[in-house]
Order: sequence, then structure tokens, then C-alpha cells
Amino acid sequence: MEHLRFMQSAYQEAIKAFDEGEVPVGAVIVKNGSIIGKGYNRIEKLSDATAHAEIIAISAASSRNNSWRLDDCTLYVTLEPCLMCLGAIMQSRVNCVVYAATDKKLGAIDSHYYQQQIEHSFGYFPEIISGIMAPECSHLLSTFFRKIRNI
Amino acid sequence: MEHLRFMQSAYQEAIKAFDEGEVPVGAVIVKNGSIIGKGYNRIEKLSDATAHAEIIAISAASSRNNSWRLDDCTLYVTLEPCLMCLGAIMQSRVNCVVYAATDKKLGAIDSHYYQQQIEHSFGYFPEIISGIMAPECSHLLSTFFRKIRNI
Repeated sequence: MEHLRFMQSAYQEAIKAFDEGEVPVGAVIVKNGSIIGKGYNRIEKLSDATAHAEIIAISAASSRNNSWRLDDCTLYVTLEPCLMCLGAIMQSRVNCVVYAATDKKLGAIDSHYYQQQIEHSFGYFPEIISGIMAPECSHLLSTFFRKIRNI
Repeated sequence: MEHLRFMQSAYQEAIKAFDEGEVPVGAVIVKNGSIIGKGYNRIEKLSDATAHAEIIAISAASSRNNSWRLDDCTLYVTLEPCLMCLGAIMQSRVNCVVYAATDKKLGAIDSHYYQQQIEHSFGYFPEIISGIMAPECSHLLSTFFRKIRNI
């Protein structure tokens, strides 16, 4: 139930991206049962390819946390993280990732391709939970892509 | 000669990090022979694990470029990029990476481990040039780590 509640918050962030004409992905960071950082995809608005939901949420959470170490935190995100965001998750020591929809093209977790090398480099790999609200988050993405293709 | 000149600029950025007590890594982004973005490691100052030199330089360059696409740009960085920064390089479509020192622990390029999967996902891999000013950039890093261990 707790996972569902926080994924709903991430989904609300994704809606903000949708409303601003961005690929609708949202993320929240949770520590001790409270959200300490939020973010949604703002690549077009900020003209910045690093402005993924996860990066913005990690930056916000770190600032609130007064530490770059988020090792007691869980990241909730509506789409499977890409390589950059998986790297940011590792750098910030997030220890659990809950994602909704899989990203067959650019997702860096579900393939498990990178896991062995990452564990070797960092000495750990976060706990991964996937699929919560996957239909809703996938539907939001497909609605967005249908909409921009019709423009 | 051009590579050396721009790596010297990246090195100057690394010196700024050193002077602020950060792990000394610096980066610049070059387009059409001009630097359009700079950055140095600011993890501790900003309490943000995503504040690597490359991420800051990419954000700055994208802002100046008025586009998140940096596909006609070269990134110069004093240390081999980590997985997060390699992901940011791919997301921003940087097409050439020049780095100085290798990072045996967290470097994501020299091992070539990730290259095949990345090429499969993104359809390209940047040109890589390494070793320019490697001794100077490595020396700056080892001086930094000796200094903080003595405190």
C-alpha cells in the first residue's frame, strides 16, 4: 500500500510533465516514510538532456537532506531509469528503486545487463521493485506520444 | 594542439574544484572551436551526488546552445567519466569525448564493458580520445587525496 501511495505521487509529477508538453515521467524520493524530493521531466523546458525526473528528484532530495548520500532513501519513478539515471542512483547511494513501466529501448535495469559490472564497481546494487501502476504510467506515455504525433 | 588547449581549460576547472576542497575534476564542452560550457565537481558544496563536472558542463552548454542536443560538441574532461556521466553524454548526444586520466574503479569508458549495450540502445557511441594531460590530471587527484588523508 505504501509503494502504491508514493507511486501515485510520482504519477502526479508525471502529469505535470504531460501538461507542460514533456515526455511524462515523474519521480519522488522517500526517506522515513516522507517525500523529501520530487521531479518531473523538463528536458525541453530547460533545454537540458540531464533534466530527467530522477536527476531533479535526487538533486532536490539531496538539498533537503543536506547530504549527497541518500542511502536510506527509496526512489519511486513512473518509468524504468535510463543509464544516466541508474548512474545517478548509484552515485547518490539510493538503496531501493521502485519503478512502474519498463522502457524496452533505453531502460537500464530490466535487462540486468549492467548489474554485474555495477555491483563490481560500487559494491552493491539497489533493491528493485517494478510494475506498480505500470498500466497507468504506460497509458500516460502512450497518450502523450499519440498526441504529439497528431500535431 | 587543439585538444591540449581545451584540456588545459578543463584542468583549470579541476583546479577550482581542488581549491574548494572537492575531488578535482573539471570539464568543458566545445562547439565549433569555442567553449560553450564549463563545470567542475561540486558534490560537497551543493550536497548533490549528481554535481559532477560533466553534468554541470553539459547543463551549461545546453543552456547556452538553446538546445539539449549537443551532437556537434566535444566534451573534454580531466578524468574518465563514470556511468552517470557516460549516460548524460549519450542523452545529450555529445559525439566526441576527450578524457585525461583513467578511473580504474568507476570509469565507464576504458573498460569498454558498457559500449556494446549502449550502441545497441542509442545507435551510436561517441568517438573516444584518452590520455591527453593524463599525468598532470592524475597528479592533481593524487595530491588532493594525499592532502585530505593528512588532515
